[in-house]
Amino acid sequence: MRVYDIILKKRNGHELSDEEINFFINGIMDGSIPDYQASALLMAIYFKGLNKRETAQLTMAMVNSGDVLDLSGIAGIKVDKHSTGGVGDKISLIVIPLAAAAGVPVAKISGRGLGHTGGTVDKLEAISGFNTELSKETFFDNVNKYKMSIAGQTANLTPADKKLYALRDVTATVDSIPLIASSIMSKKIASGADCIVLDVKVGSGAFMKSIDEAVLLAETMVEIGKSLNKKTIAVVSDMSQPLGHEVGNANEVKEAIEVLRGDGAEDETEVALTIASYMTVLGGAFSEFNEAYGYLKGIIESGKALDKFKQLISIQSGNPEVADNPELLPQAKHHIEIKSSQEGFVYSIDAESIGVAAMLLGAGRRKKNDSIDHSAGITIKKKVGEKVNHDDTICILHTNLENWDEARVSAENAFKIMKTANKPLKYIHDIIQ
Amino acid sequence: MRVYDIILKKRNGHELSDEEINFFINGIMDGSIPDYQASALLMAIYFKGLNKRETAQLTMAMVNSGDVLDLSGIAGIKVDKHSTGGVGDKISLIVIPLAAAAGVPVAKISGRGLGHTGGTVDKLEAISGFNTELSKETFFDNVNKYKMSIAGQTANLTPADKKLYALRDVTATVDSIPLIASSIMSKKIASGADCIVLDVKVGSGAFMKSIDEAVLLAETMVEIGKSLNKKTIAVVSDMSQPLGHEVGNANEVKEAIEVLRGDGAEDETEVALTIASYMTVLGGAFSEFNEAYGYLKGIIESGKALDKFKQLISIQSGNPEVADNPELLPQAKHHIEIKSSQEGFVYSIDAESIGVAAMLLGAGRRKKNDSIDHSAGITIKKKVGEKVNHDDTICILHTNLENWDEARVSAENAFKIMKTANKPLKYIHDIIQ
Repeated sequence: MRVYDIILKKRNGHELSDEEINFFINGIMDGSIPDYQASALLMAIYFKGLNKRETAQLTMAMVNSGDVLDLSGIAGIKVDKHSTGGVGDKISLIVIPLAAAAGVPVAKISGRGLGHTGGTVDKLEAISGFNTELSKETFFDNVNKYKMSIAGQTANLTPADKKLYALRDVTATVDSIPLIASSIMSKKIASGADCIVLDVKVGSGAFMKSIDEAVLLAETMVEIGKSLNKKTIAVVSDMSQPLGHEVGNANEVKEAIEVLRGDGAEDETEVALTIASYMTVLGGAFSEFNEAYGYLKGIIESGKALDKFKQLISIQSGNPEVADNPELLPQAKHHIEIKSSQEGFVYSIDAESIGVAAMLLGAGRRKKNDSIDHSAGITIKKKVGEKVNHDDTICILHTNLENWDEARVSAENAFKIMKTANKPLKYIHDIIQ
Repeated sequence: MRVYDIILKKRNGHELSDEEINFFINGIMDGSIPDYQASALLMAIYFKGLNKRETAQLTMAMVNSGDVLDLSGIAGIKVDKHSTGGVGDKISLIVIPLAAAAGVPVAKISGRGLGHTGGTVDKLEAISGFNTELSKETFFDNVNKYKMSIAGQTANLTPADKKLYALRDVTATVDSIPLIASSIMSKKIASGADCIVLDVKVGSGAFMKSIDEAVLLAETMVEIGKSLNKKTIAVVSDMSQPLGHEVGNANEVKEAIEVLRGDGAEDETEVALTIASYMTVLGGAFSEFNEAYGYLKGIIESGKALDKFKQLISIQSGNPEVADNPELLPQAKHHIEIKSSQEGFVYSIDAESIGVAAMLLGAGRRKKNDSIDHSAGITIKKKVGEKVNHDDTICILHTNLENWDEARVSAENAFKIMKTANKPLKYIHDIIQ
């Protein structure tokens, strides 16, 4: 077998065999296929695509390139959740205690990653003492006893995906649906869960800008899950403005607490309840969505959901008092209010610009070893559709830095205010299962 | 400027600026652009193409990557000729003396190259003593005095094309019309001629399999020539069977002599006269094609053409007696006649299979440093359309090797014999100017 023939075959629009896909991934791993042939194949895939079988096979080949976590030491049907990423996305912080409170085990492996704000692990580390460096035994014990635990990634999961992603990143071959789908699904499958709920974000603050694209990505990932015997549901949720009111780390924890306490933002609450409901249905706690949704709404009202979050903090050595007193979370030195120079209605809030502003305030990482300021971030005071009077505060910047001019411009420009209100936004665009 | 943005732009089907194309070629040359980004861009070009301006700019950027020959020391309008390559293509051997006899200077730089048989230089070296390693002074003097000379390539012409070609060869990006066209034209332009006649071969023995493709390649090359102020004409000629009767080296010289003597194969003579006529028109010796064609036919009949070939041999230190006594050319030890097992008409002769057979007999080079057996080759005794009786000899293999089984099978399989004759072949399919 020669990689040249594989490139030619895909370039001419033909289907690659399982053997050819394995040959390619093995060649990437053992170095026998040079990068210049790999990138030519990736570009051919960008143009000619991969069908369902090829995409599933690529996913499995990448899974098999590294460690695969064995969660058989945990009782029950393990459910994982993944988001394609957005601004103000603190859904994981909310759905872990919700699903666990319904008795569904959530063994969450999460990353820090690069982005406008930190990842789930970074956000939780805003809570004093919160520790995600757990031994396998502690991690398993936690999930068996409390139905939940969260740990940073230490195993060597999907190294082939890492290599391919690094190459895609510099050869303009990132935005290919089958390549994105197989990359995400390979990591989820290597993480060992039985079922997966995907949160596919769509809109200005997401990687997928149109609903059609997002639905296609969702369908492709659900198909991969099915092919590989992992029950998979995808929720296509809105990211045309930042989710909720808070963007950052500590302030996102604060907002997660608000949702779990029952007084969270409408969009945040709706998306979190939808994701958590599907997690508990896949995990076998409920037979259908509405039942799950009703139950989870009830435990928010009863206080059980917030208690479960306190428990999560406690078992991971954090200070659970933050759940009742969010002011214990790190606070920034400066709070800069941005006021509206116009009167009208918020027509749109560009999530990408808000994300960039948060990063400029210190909330995110540009490079792998950058440190994060947990207290930095942005509070959105006026969301899309809300009435704004002249001089109303539209958002507040939080930072410890002394120069926030650039962040201010980016945040200010994110808001588009119009004379008349536009039609209300949908929070959930589609469910693919 | 970043190569990433250039790849993305082309991938999205947009036009690259002259600066972007120069940046790419300079980056290839100074090593600042890694091969994996170059190959991704080449694959994007394969899918999205290059327009006329981009193709001309790529050509010029490759020309400027190396030496450009200065032929200003030669008087008159210098005309070059290039063939896209075929089996039995000995046209250069014929048109050099023809154009020179009409007073048009031909300063031919030619390669050895890899292929089923040798290149023009290899073929001429079948003539005892023929020397193509000429100093620049001798080369210029020959052209000024005799209107012709042929030399092997020594200058560092279009190194960017060499690098890109090596990468295209292993990434399935060779067969892109703008990349082929710019590669050929960059070499011709760097060779310094004022005018170029291109022989674009089409058919089973050529790189271009369909007339549409061949015409598109011809048009693209003529456009490049025009953009860069080089008068260019392309002849689209037939390669659905080997050209003439002889495939090899010494035996191709013998056939060239036959054409120059006036008793050559019909197809070979017609293609050679057409190419040579356009060369002399571009070179200013005649105002129109028919006049040139008539004159050249006349000098073949008068013996002047063959005398000019003898002169070419003499001035390059070869033995001109071969022109009168072709049996002085190297002769192989074995001559294997292949006979027809059927009766009927030759329907087709697969030129590619004949080429492979010639290579197997020792006539070509697989690797750069392989030696060539000038006496090896194949004589086609029955061409397409000819009547064949049972046991008629259809071709003869010439070799010094002791095992010709594989070559025999390849040559035998090249012939397709049918009960009824098919319609006669056209030798010239199109002229693009």
